[in-house]
Amino acid sequence: MSQYAIAVHGGAGAIPRTTMTTEKEVLFRRGLEDAINAGDSVLAAGGSALDAVEAAVRSLEDEPVYNAGRGAVFTNKGTIELDSSIMDGRNLMAGAVTGIKNIKNPVSLARTVMEKSEHVFLSGLGAMEFAEKMGLEFAPDEYFFIQERYDQLLVAKEYDRVVLDHGIAGNIVPVPPPSKKGTVGAVALDVHGNIAAATSTGGMTNKKFGRVGDSPVIGAGTYANNNTCAISCTGHGEFFIRSVVAYDISCLMEYKGMSLREACDFVVHKKLVTIGGEGGLVAIDRHGNIEMPFNSEGMYRAMKRSNGEKYVGIYLDQVR
Amino acid sequence: MSQYAIAVHGGAGAIPRTTMTTEKEVLFRRGLEDAINAGDSVLAAGGSALDAVEAAVRSLEDEPVYNAGRGAVFTNKGTIELDSSIMDGRNLMAGAVTGIKNIKNPVSLARTVMEKSEHVFLSGLGAMEFAEKMGLEFAPDEYFFIQERYDQLLVAKEYDRVVLDHGIAGNIVPVPPPSKKGTVGAVALDVHGNIAAATSTGGMTNKKFGRVGDSPVIGAGTYANNNTCAISCTGHGEFFIRSVVAYDISCLMEYKGMSLREACDFVVHKKLVTIGGEGGLVAIDRHGNIEMPFNSEGMYRAMKRSNGEKYVGIYLDQVR
Repeated sequence: MSQYAIAVHGGAGAIPRTTMTTEKEVLFRRGLEDAINAGDSVLAAGGSALDAVEAAVRSLEDEPVYNAGRGAVFTNKGTIELDSSIMDGRNLMAGAVTGIKNIKNPVSLARTVMEKSEHVFLSGLGAMEFAEKMGLEFAPDEYFFIQERYDQLLVAKEYDRVVLDHGIAGNIVPVPPPSKKGTVGAVALDVHGNIAAATSTGGMTNKKFGRVGDSPVIGAGTYANNNTCAISCTGHGEFFIRSVVAYDISCLMEYKGMSLREACDFVVHKKLVTIGGEGGLVAIDRHGNIEMPFNSEGMYRAMKRSNGEKYVGIYLDQVR
Repeated sequence: MSQYAIAVHGGAGAIPRTTMTTEKEVLFRRGLEDAINAGDSVLAAGGSALDAVEAAVRSLEDEPVYNAGRGAVFTNKGTIELDSSIMDGRNLMAGAVTGIKNIKNPVSLARTVMEKSEHVFLSGLGAMEFAEKMGLEFAPDEYFFIQERYDQLLVAKEYDRVVLDHGIAGNIVPVPPPSKKGTVGAVALDVHGNIAAATSTGGMTNKKFGRVGDSPVIGAGTYANNNTCAISCTGHGEFFIRSVVAYDISCLMEYKGMSLREACDFVVHKKLVTIGGEGGLVAIDRHGNIEMPFNSEGMYRAMKRSNGEKYVGIYLDQVR
């Protein structure tokens, strides 16, 4: 039987160890385990990489401790605005949504856009109208109300400043405890040799002006191409958009002949660092190589392979 | 004195010669001439490439025959929703907006996002709130009402189908006369050796569900990097997003050592054609090379250089 593998992330950023309690770490790790198991189950049954990344991201979206779906952070107006995207490495098909509300699993809406619309990218009320027409599952505001998230907004508003969810602005404002972590995503290789990627987020606490990050931007936050790699990013989205991070890694492999590792290292540890872009990503290629680089203090991440190899980590020193 | 140059486009697609009257062609050509002159004036005075592309795109946005700003096409709901983006090759700074209404010059809002916000990409009502705060010029619905555009919507709705502005779906539905042309954009090189790109559009006639095309997506519809090229795209946006067209050209130059022409040809005439992506783009590098490739029947395009060289064309056989 051919090999298969999945890798997920639950956000990158500064995650002060001093504020991480054992109880919280258990919750975060369980969320990651559930996600890789959800994806692994699909892959073990011969399912597609596309199905696997959707299942893994749905699992993280349902988990209140991660900033996507149910656990999304609040905008400046006290609302929840969700972004997501998905891409299929077989055929370069892609779907993305931004600025949507009350959709239980944004990644599934992104997939529906890919498969059932003539479009790639839908936004706002129009995207929700499409979701309703397609029978996507909606959830009431209460479903998305997590007290800790709301407290986080209050702190952020107090400083009248957009605070990055992961405390990238940690030197300026006291960042709330690390139980509100960012963007989630997954990449997978299936037994058929296909790869896929998906990303989902609630964006930044206290975000204003309909800010769109890199998560719904194909090429920036998400990219998949069987010939090169599948990538899902997390971090300071503005830098990831300007650097077209996900597609950059693909191009370094395709045009410059770099390996997945070389391309990931170059982009995350050199190019992004040069322009001040904090964050990381999970990456896979069709040979089953997995990379999970980040230039921040930590990144919630996990991977599992058909040969039984498994890894779950948060901090840099938790090297696999 | 160093050389400078500007190139603009006013959309690509099928432009049936049979429906093009002399009067209309004069209007289209005048719009292109005005745009290159607007950009050229900035550049001749030693202004920046960034100022030049903004000036050129503003000129096209103000022109009712082009599908951006005032001349934008109507959505399915009879509204006008505008997208734009801009990028500065000096420092990879970028700004973009999607789903905005009643903003006279979306490209200037994109630039304001780049320069006055912490963000790159703003959407919908939030973006308009930002515009108001920043003092951007608003215009009433009447300003954007062009009878011919509205008639175009009625025809499109009659067929209950999203018709591409440029008649890409021309084999399926009778496409209205070619006086409603697409996305506009500009690229420029200034005397300081810097390059920039900007794109602006009203999207597709009869568009639904808050559809976002490639125009506001950095890497897809717009990209600029002094080390490689500045690009503004036009065409079937979904394919341009999936192919990350603008950044792909940059990567082919940077990582594979292609010239601007080789990279443009490869992407527009090979890669896009393979996946069925109709359209074109304008491109410039810091040596002043200009390319204006398209794989459609025509592309409204023009260029002007500091040495006096000038070109305005619509059809393929109008080779410069």
